[in-house]
Amino acid sequence: MTVSDVVELEGHIIDSGLMERAFTVVMDLGGEFDIEEFHVGTRKDEESYCRMRVIADDEETLHPILHELHQSGATLAAPTDATLTPAPADNVVPHGFYSTTNHPTDVRIDGEWVGVENIEMDCAVVVEGVENEDGNVVAEDGEVTAETKVLNGIEAGDLVVTGDAGIRVKPPERPRDSSGPFGFMQGGVSAERPSESLIRDIAEAIAETKAQGGRVLCVAGPAVIHAGGGPALARLVREGYVDAISAGNGFAVHDMERSRYGTSLGMDVETMEHPRKGHKHHIYTISEVVRAGGIEAAVEEGLITEGVMYECVVNDRDFVLAGSIRDDGPLPDTITDAVEAQNAIREQARDADLVLMLSSLLHSVAVGNCLPSTTRTVCVDINPATVTQLLDRGSAQAVGMVTDVGTFVPILAEELVE
Amino acid sequence: MTVSDVVELEGHIIDSGLMERAFTVVMDLGGEFDIEEFHVGTRKDEESYCRMRVIADDEETLHPILHELHQSGATLAAPTDATLTPAPADNVVPHGFYSTTNHPTDVRIDGEWVGVENIEMDCAVVVEGVENEDGNVVAEDGEVTAETKVLNGIEAGDLVVTGDAGIRVKPPERPRDSSGPFGFMQGGVSAERPSESLIRDIAEAIAETKAQGGRVLCVAGPAVIHAGGGPALARLVREGYVDAISAGNGFAVHDMERSRYGTSLGMDVETMEHPRKGHKHHIYTISEVVRAGGIEAAVEEGLITEGVMYECVVNDRDFVLAGSIRDDGPLPDTITDAVEAQNAIREQARDADLVLMLSSLLHSVAVGNCLPSTTRTVCVDINPATVTQLLDRGSAQAVGMVTDVGTFVPILAEELVE
Amino acid sequence: MTVSDVVELEGHIIDSGLMERAFTVVMDLGGEFDIEEFHVGTRKDEESYCRMRVIADDEETLHPILHELHQSGATLAAPTDATLTPAPADNVVPHGFYSTTNHPTDVRIDGEWVGVENIEMDCAVVVEGVENEDGNVVAEDGEVTAETKVLNGIEAGDLVVTGDAGIRVKPPERPRDSSGPFGFMQGGVSAERPSESLIRDIAEAIAETKAQGGRVLCVAGPAVIHAGGGPALARLVREGYVDAISAGNGFAVHDMERSRYGTSLGMDVETMEHPRKGHKHHIYTISEVVRAGGIEAAVEEGLITEGVMYECVVNDRDFVLAGSIRDDGPLPDTITDAVEAQNAIREQARDADLVLMLSSLLHSVAVGNCLPSTTRTVCVDINPATVTQLLDRGSAQAVGMVTDVGTFVPILAEELVE
Amino acid sequence: MTVSDVVELEGHIIDSGLMERAFTVVMDLGGEFDIEEFHVGTRKDEESYCRMRVIADDEETLHPILHELHQSGATLAAPTDATLTPAPADNVVPHGFYSTTNHPTDVRIDGEWVGVENIEMDCAVVVEGVENEDGNVVAEDGEVTAETKVLNGIEAGDLVVTGDAGIRVKPPERPRDSSGPFGFMQGGVSAERPSESLIRDIAEAIAETKAQGGRVLCVAGPAVIHAGGGPALARLVREGYVDAISAGNGFAVHDMERSRYGTSLGMDVETMEHPRKGHKHHIYTISEVVRAGGIEAAVEEGLITEGVMYECVVNDRDFVLAGSIRDDGPLPDTITDAVEAQNAIREQARDADLVLMLSSLLHSVAVGNCLPSTTRTVCVDINPATVTQLLDRGSAQAVGMVTDVGTFVPILAEELVE
Repeated sequence: MTVSDVVELEGHIIDSGLMERAFTVVMDLGGEFDIEEFHVGTRKDEESYCRMRVIADDEETLHPILHELHQSGATLAAPTDATLTPAPADNVVPHGFYSTTNHPTDVRIDGEWVGVENIEMDCAVVVEGVENEDGNVVAEDGEVTAETKVLNGIEAGDLVVTGDAGIRVKPPERPRDSSGPFGFMQGGVSAERPSESLIRDIAEAIAETKAQGGRVLCVAGPAVIHAGGGPALARLVREGYVDAISAGNGFAVHDMERSRYGTSLGMDVETMEHPRKGHKHHIYTISEVVRAGGIEAAVEEGLITEGVMYECVVNDRDFVLAGSIRDDGPLPDTITDAVEAQNAIREQARDADLVLMLSSLLHSVAVGNCLPSTTRTVCVDINPATVTQLLDRGSAQAVGMVTDVGTFVPILAEELVE
Repeated sequence: MTVSDVVELEGHIIDSGLMERAFTVVMDLGGEFDIEEFHVGTRKDEESYCRMRVIADDEETLHPILHELHQSGATLAAPTDATLTPAPADNVVPHGFYSTTNHPTDVRIDGEWVGVENIEMDCAVVVEGVENEDGNVVAEDGEVTAETKVLNGIEAGDLVVTGDAGIRVKPPERPRDSSGPFGFMQGGVSAERPSESLIRDIAEAIAETKAQGGRVLCVAGPAVIHAGGGPALARLVREGYVDAISAGNGFAVHDMERSRYGTSLGMDVETMEHPRKGHKHHIYTISEVVRAGGIEAAVEEGLITEGVMYECVVNDRDFVLAGSIRDDGPLPDTITDAVEAQNAIREQARDADLVLMLSSLLHSVAVGNCLPSTTRTVCVDINPATVTQLLDRGSAQAVGMVTDVGTFVPILAEELVE
Repeated sequence: MTVSDVVELEGHIIDSGLMERAFTVVMDLGGEFDIEEFHVGTRKDEESYCRMRVIADDEETLHPILHELHQSGATLAAPTDATLTPAPADNVVPHGFYSTTNHPTDVRIDGEWVGVENIEMDCAVVVEGVENEDGNVVAEDGEVTAETKVLNGIEAGDLVVTGDAGIRVKPPERPRDSSGPFGFMQGGVSAERPSESLIRDIAEAIAETKAQGGRVLCVAGPAVIHAGGGPALARLVREGYVDAISAGNGFAVHDMERSRYGTSLGMDVETMEHPRKGHKHHIYTISEVVRAGGIEAAVEEGLITEGVMYECVVNDRDFVLAGSIRDDGPLPDTITDAVEAQNAIREQARDADLVLMLSSLLHSVAVGNCLPSTTRTVCVDINPATVTQLLDRGSAQAVGMVTDVGTFVPILAEELVE
Repeated sequence: MTVSDVVELEGHIIDSGLMERAFTVVMDLGGEFDIEEFHVGTRKDEESYCRMRVIADDEETLHPILHELHQSGATLAAPTDATLTPAPADNVVPHGFYSTTNHPTDVRIDGEWVGVENIEMDCAVVVEGVENEDGNVVAEDGEVTAETKVLNGIEAGDLVVTGDAGIRVKPPERPRDSSGPFGFMQGGVSAERPSESLIRDIAEAIAETKAQGGRVLCVAGPAVIHAGGGPALARLVREGYVDAISAGNGFAVHDMERSRYGTSLGMDVETMEHPRKGHKHHIYTISEVVRAGGIEAAVEEGLITEGVMYECVVNDRDFVLAGSIRDDGPLPDTITDAVEAQNAIREQARDADLVLMLSSLLHSVAVGNCLPSTTRTVCVDINPATVTQLLDRGSAQAVGMVTDVGTFVPILAEELVE
């Protein structure tokens, strides 16, 4: 006695790896498959189609297989509506909740496919605009909407999608046409590519994003300032190539400390050899900004007269400073509550069309967690492990570069700003 | 026309490196020295003494030299009282505030040396029990106390030590007798030492700390659980070799997830090959603990039946879970506010006699920032850069080991628990 | 006007990734494809078949596409004989020579498919037993053979395969049945798997290899000795779990130095703290072995009485010590010429059924270069970059483990030797 | 009953760390000290002096203490002549041979201090121009000379210095005047210094070395070519800022392959995505250079028309290519024998006044092993562990930079060549 179900795969399912993944999932998780239909696109712009029956010994084996196939982009051949279950309490998901990928996703409600808004991985999907009639979910008169919610956004009674039925995931496919500046963004870590030519391509991608009216978000760690990349990043903010900054308390303090205390070379050199000494300037900087009432006030008072934070204030660029347990101070602008900070980061991430992650594992992971797989991402770090970890999130158009931010940012700015 | 001041160095000033450092500081920062008196201890248990006049062209040059000499352990030959300046506002230090090292420190108030409590680096020193008479600080009738305060603990009007006068720092000296289990803790990163013999020494140090009634704090990252060190760490908590845990939300969730969902090997293996799958268990675990009301309640309800957190609850061991912007959930027990979390960590750190830092850079840095240089510290990570960074804080008895926590913790537990 | 050719793909071409790779190659290199026939195996033990016409604008575009498809496992639909071109001089390949992969490969000579012996990547294929009649290669009466030759093995006149015609490559496919001890060897770097359970699996794989009469080759770096893994490795050699050692001069000297000078713990500890001191023992060890006439003689004289090299001599295990420009000495046994050393390594590699690479990038790369993709390989290093680099050679059954050899080897020996 | 001996320390013994080291050595190795005399230089240009009696329980304890003190720069108070012992056989040192540091060293022969030539660490010292009269070594009429010999240079009968008597080591002292371009070269790894300003300082150091008629040796790994630094390094060779290249077979092949096959960008990009494809060009390049007869001939034939090797040939710069077991080919110019290669590297190292080590651990270690501690060294690598390992050799003027050679070399060339 076996159980089975039928799934369909559609699109460029061979070169996107979906077919391979589907076969592998079934075999890894102990199932069998029976290909009921298979059309292969005979030319590169034709799509392929596969209908596959998945067979397993019992439901316990079958279920995880179907779940994984779903997550990978397969859909149930005979689609039914998604199952909606009310959340039993605030911050609590119903058992069997559907946990999202970061790929575009639809849920089927009352026979219609509804796109899930604000797609982000590892979230629940909450549906609004439906009611429960005789045990069946039906659309209300108004619009039915579905959106992702993180665990701490769930409220008691929220209708949460459970199970895998009625869900459609669309992992990104290989673009048929790989020309254009974004063509390069498919290569994973490019350790062996000439650094200058890769930076040129990244510059082109940023320029094109801006030309199309897109937004560039830069996630930056304190190493950008230490390595000497501060003035070049400030220039990118001023010239409008970077629309928003996502960073931590330390980044902002180091940046402003340089404006306040880093003017003489002698002092700079001294600081480098006597880090504890420099720390006093760190605390002074925080102290002065606290007294002014915040970064904007400090700029207005003329305390801070250059640097990344200065350009953000003067040019009205959005910035989010998220707190951490390592922070000194912190600055009044720093969001010390982790949940609030995540929410602020989430908003930045959703608005971004290209994200530049510079030497900041913690903040880059936090931003990356909120990004759909369709957002272009560039990760730059001198540590290959950091770059690998950041790229390893299934982004469709992500490129990693193992290089020195202290030479990267100036060369990038040079390319972008004539 | 030059300016000068006289400093004294006392103790085992040669083999502690203090003499070398003093000479180097003076020369690096552009000063001259004139050795007015020098006695060298002729045998290893005799102390040495040096009185040195430091000469510079102007006050601007002299001041940083004296500051650095202070920080290194020199004292002004003719000690005066410390200068106290009221903090101008909450969270704001007066200009010229004295920024602490992590070494034992005294301040001179009204002619008496007062020990600074809760020593921690990069803090201000606030003095209580004094009053201002005719511009002079005099002790009140009660006790005069001095303690460190971080920036966000400063209140308007707090009397903060400014300048370097009236301050005495005592950097740790090389113990004259290096036998005993702590003898090994002077070696920095021990990459080339046989791993098993080094683990044996660490076990001995823990056993001795416990035998002397000391407390062992373990800072642990999620990698401890991933690498399979969870059961062994739980055993150390149960048997009383670890008194407290300092970790993040992720560590606790992974640990409890293993208790809830990690019982069958098949599941385990599956999880490893399908990390996104495992994530659902992650969210379930949080969800269930949220519903129970917290970790303690979840243990009492029988939801969580083994693991590190379980042993903490059952054996009444203290734990602090500090939030970060990477967290899922978080758990109700996780302190999401960074400043509150730092305060909780600070308390743990002050109580600890030996700190074991296992694969957690973020939390280890946070804990390390609060430790006086006299607390024994063991840092274990597979990444040499992490170990180096953690050791690089001037701790007197710190040892680093570049190894795999997944084999380290079980071998350590084996050594300690027969 | 376009040019085209037809290739066939056969086997488990979907889950092996061959179909995906074929589509990708054609598109990446600027071609088009037309699928002329496609059968998909409907169940997991049925093979699939695809006949694909590859179309390009000109021969310059088509040729690299066909070459890549070949390398990946596709074959020309209408197979012709391989083209053979005489090598123009010693150590010189004819232009257009076929450069091997590390997968099993056949060449078609006079209508027959001949297996290429001693498969190894980046070699030329030299055919013997043929003659040139009227411009056609025909088999002589005797046997036709084909084997790989590295560049410095090529002799003037050798008949070298050129072009891609008449060549069949068989990349490894995913085993249909993944049970058994080797099932685990498909996972790449297993950083997140519990260390002890992974070591257990590796032990099982070694035991099974030995049970089947296979040979285990261990490539070992000096870090094995420094980290304290020497005695455990010596035990594995003695007990027959390791049949051969491939290492450098440094490994052997450190191992024998430990036998000669490392007996007292006091000395050991001293050595660790005074590395320059230890170096003298290093030179003494070499000096004494030189005087004895070599390692075997030194063992026979009773100079060396324990350790890995001792066990190799006493139990008649094969060892190769390859020289490098970092070496002291070197020992009389060390092969200082790089080409001779490569040849010796090549022989070891060809004989091995399972290769254990322990903390030695240089020697592991040298051995790995000579291995066919079918040899099981285990790479252990504390540096993730080393493990990734070693695994990145397309081996079918390779597993990497980021851990400490100082704890790995003892736990492994414990598992294998009761 | 104890034994003792008297040593003297002279010079800037406090800020050079010598005093600290001396105290530490005595205590670590179980001795006692009695300071018989101590003068401290009262100003920074006055030297200090210390006479210390070292006491131990027995000769076995005393001897290693005296040895370590020697190696650190202490001298026996009552100097005697060095003991000379004939080498018992080729490649065999007499027991108790003196193993050199990399610091300037004198040996006392017949009452006179003789400087040891070609100082290099871990060597024996062989004295010539002496004869053995009645058991006493006396100088012959001609000149007495002493020089270092590596183990494989020792010939039977060579008079080798044994024991520690009659030897004087002069570790480098902190320069009293740290201005000038080399002032920066005391900082170890400069991870936190602005990259561009550090590159500027390195450029200045190179320019000054050349202005003084010095020689610059560049040790380069293949990553220089991969990362795109080839053209800039070629420029430095052409313009005379680099006088000699020390590299491996792989570096030279990659460099020439770029000249032969890397001219079109399309090809380049293709190569990066299909590394196995590129490998064919690698073998072709070797093959063609073999056929030409070597690199010089290939340049003369017009096969190689640009790049680092081309500029070496055309501008008559010295290059050494040392073989390794990883090599393809190798090129006819590559020295495959490790001992011969070491000898060639040793000559290059001895001639160099400044050594630039770029992304090549193996070759940098080999070169570094031959350098006296007085040669200025710059180590550049993206891996901090490599930089740390290279700096960890007690060089007096060494600086490390963790950065990307692909951006480092172009910026350096830009600074040097207007």
